[in-house]
Amino acid sequence: MSTLDPSGRKPTLAVVGATGAVGGVMLDILSTRQDVYGEIRLVASARSAGKKLSVRGQRVEVVALAPEVFDGVDIAMFDVPDAVSAEWAPVAAERGAVVVDNSGAFRMDPDVPLVVPEVNADDARKRPRGIIANPNCTTLSMIVAIGALHEHYGLSELVVASYQAASGAGQAGIDVLYDQLERIGGKRELGHRAGDVRSAVDDDLGPFPAPLAMNVVPWAGSLQDGGWSSEELKVRNETRKILGLPGLKVAATCVRVPVVTTHSLAVHAVFESRVDQREAQALLAGSPGVVLNDNPEMYEFPTPADVVGTDPTWVGRVRRSLDDPKALDLFLCGDNLRKGAALNTAQIAELVAAELRG
Amino acid sequence: MSTLDPSGRKPTLAVVGATGAVGGVMLDILSTRQDVYGEIRLVASARSAGKKLSVRGQRVEVVALAPEVFDGVDIAMFDVPDAVSAEWAPVAAERGAVVVDNSGAFRMDPDVPLVVPEVNADDARKRPRGIIANPNCTTLSMIVAIGALHEHYGLSELVVASYQAASGAGQAGIDVLYDQLERIGGKRELGHRAGDVRSAVDDDLGPFPAPLAMNVVPWAGSLQDGGWSSEELKVRNETRKILGLPGLKVAATCVRVPVVTTHSLAVHAVFESRVDQREAQALLAGSPGVVLNDNPEMYEFPTPADVVGTDPTWVGRVRRSLDDPKALDLFLCGDNLRKGAALNTAQIAELVAAELRG
Repeated sequence: MSTLDPSGRKPTLAVVGATGAVGGVMLDILSTRQDVYGEIRLVASARSAGKKLSVRGQRVEVVALAPEVFDGVDIAMFDVPDAVSAEWAPVAAERGAVVVDNSGAFRMDPDVPLVVPEVNADDARKRPRGIIANPNCTTLSMIVAIGALHEHYGLSELVVASYQAASGAGQAGIDVLYDQLERIGGKRELGHRAGDVRSAVDDDLGPFPAPLAMNVVPWAGSLQDGGWSSEELKVRNETRKILGLPGLKVAATCVRVPVVTTHSLAVHAVFESRVDQREAQALLAGSPGVVLNDNPEMYEFPTPADVVGTDPTWVGRVRRSLDDPKALDLFLCGDNLRKGAALNTAQIAELVAAELRG
Repeated sequence: MSTLDPSGRKPTLAVVGATGAVGGVMLDILSTRQDVYGEIRLVASARSAGKKLSVRGQRVEVVALAPEVFDGVDIAMFDVPDAVSAEWAPVAAERGAVVVDNSGAFRMDPDVPLVVPEVNADDARKRPRGIIANPNCTTLSMIVAIGALHEHYGLSELVVASYQAASGAGQAGIDVLYDQLERIGGKRELGHRAGDVRSAVDDDLGPFPAPLAMNVVPWAGSLQDGGWSSEELKVRNETRKILGLPGLKVAATCVRVPVVTTHSLAVHAVFESRVDQREAQALLAGSPGVVLNDNPEMYEFPTPADVVGTDPTWVGRVRRSLDDPKALDLFLCGDNLRKGAALNTAQIAELVAAELRG
């Protein structure tokens, strides 16, 4: 990959999957962050081709995914299902684009860096396949804050319980949660007998294995060995790769909650050295991309309803464990469509854009 | 405390707080379990005196709390606020009743046993003050299952994240959740921008410090030293006392979720010896008061919507930690008004009734 010509041309960007849930947030983000791109091409499946979408205040026509759309493209963002990325990201890379991929297809490929700009920006330059992967939304909802604490204290173990939003399962997840909330709203007899919520939502479960309204569902992803869900293994494997800690102990339980957008996590983090509550709070407050919101005396702590639509990772309930001077207990919230997906992808693309412009 | 006279008289029971949320479930439980009592007296504040409530198929008039109501009472259940129990439980005990108290007033008193019949039934006999305490609902939602695993493997550490139901905050919590669900139901624009859910529920928060519908709230109870909530400390202190493990390491983060009734917990439990997934599942399946519901291949795991209204502790998602052969990760659900409150109180009272009858 050479730098762009010295004429000062701004890089050409392709957004693949522009019409999806994350794609919509991406266009919003591209319209509000510093404008570092020349042309922006919007790409989607043939079904969506011809649609016009707004980006940077202009209407842009969506073009159908094909090898030629990547000609002249410097950076290609992919927000598409794993199988689509697996097939098309190498095509884009072969045509000279640096791919920033938000699917799970390449995250654990040793020749593909997994990047969170606040944590491991330098890894973005080591991309033998021309592909950079964007982490899973659950990992991203905590990693900036955990990375900052790791840098100071040295992380040795994580125990994570998630409170994941419906939009992590895409637009279908959002739709079914709204449908269910509409069906149960105003019915004060529900929630007292086993199965009554299930009947009230008429088994319209969408992408979830149980009702989500008035419920929590301890499952996300597909079944893996040992009873683990794929989502739980992603939290373990991706955290290890991003932090460069292949032996990090991680135990995650991933649970879906009836929230539209913004993932929350309860984290028990064990470090190599002793921790201090005030010092940890100050470290977090001073870290880029993190907001400390931790004053329980005034009922100040992050909740999804107050965090959704914002960029940072919000951290509250910072406590030193009572029985382990090397452990902290925290509660974190992050918008799973922004930092958890589109924003981090945009940040990686900006790193590449700066690099290409030399 | 002597046993009852040899005529075979059944013990007289007083239910103090009969008109509350737990009291209502208690009358239901008393009407469906084996009938071991003679007279049942229903007691409440003066405001509720004269009301008639159904128990064992009969209408019984509620009497106002006063010292005399305990005359001739063998067992008195208290489901009232801490301050009311603190004042009145000793009065009942002085008049000869064995008190089974569901408040937090006496749980950590060294002269008051804290009893879960499946775990430490024998402790119920050691009651120098004539008072037996019933644990907090969050502790009760996991302790039967954790106790069974402890008996086999020897527990050394717990990391707990809770998903607590609105009814843990009483009828006011239930009411405000229904109100909020009614206000948001059908509004598909909500949940995308910070503060919009807060506006939609018109800051009608009831006993919670943030909106509960379409949200999760990382707070339960009052603020204690080090940023801990009282609920989190109860999980630690009560688990230690019930299991007889004063040095047990416990780190809990307690979070309220928009579920009416049934608490859930994600638990990372570390033991003194190596664990095995299949063996742990078999142990749980064979434990009284526990239902193993753990077949993720068929999407079988407990959720509050399927557990509410039932007696047992439901356990699923049993996994051996990938990075610690001595640790298990689990997801548990328990009805916080039944096993979490009224049922456990009734079970303790039945232990005492059997003891009194010799």
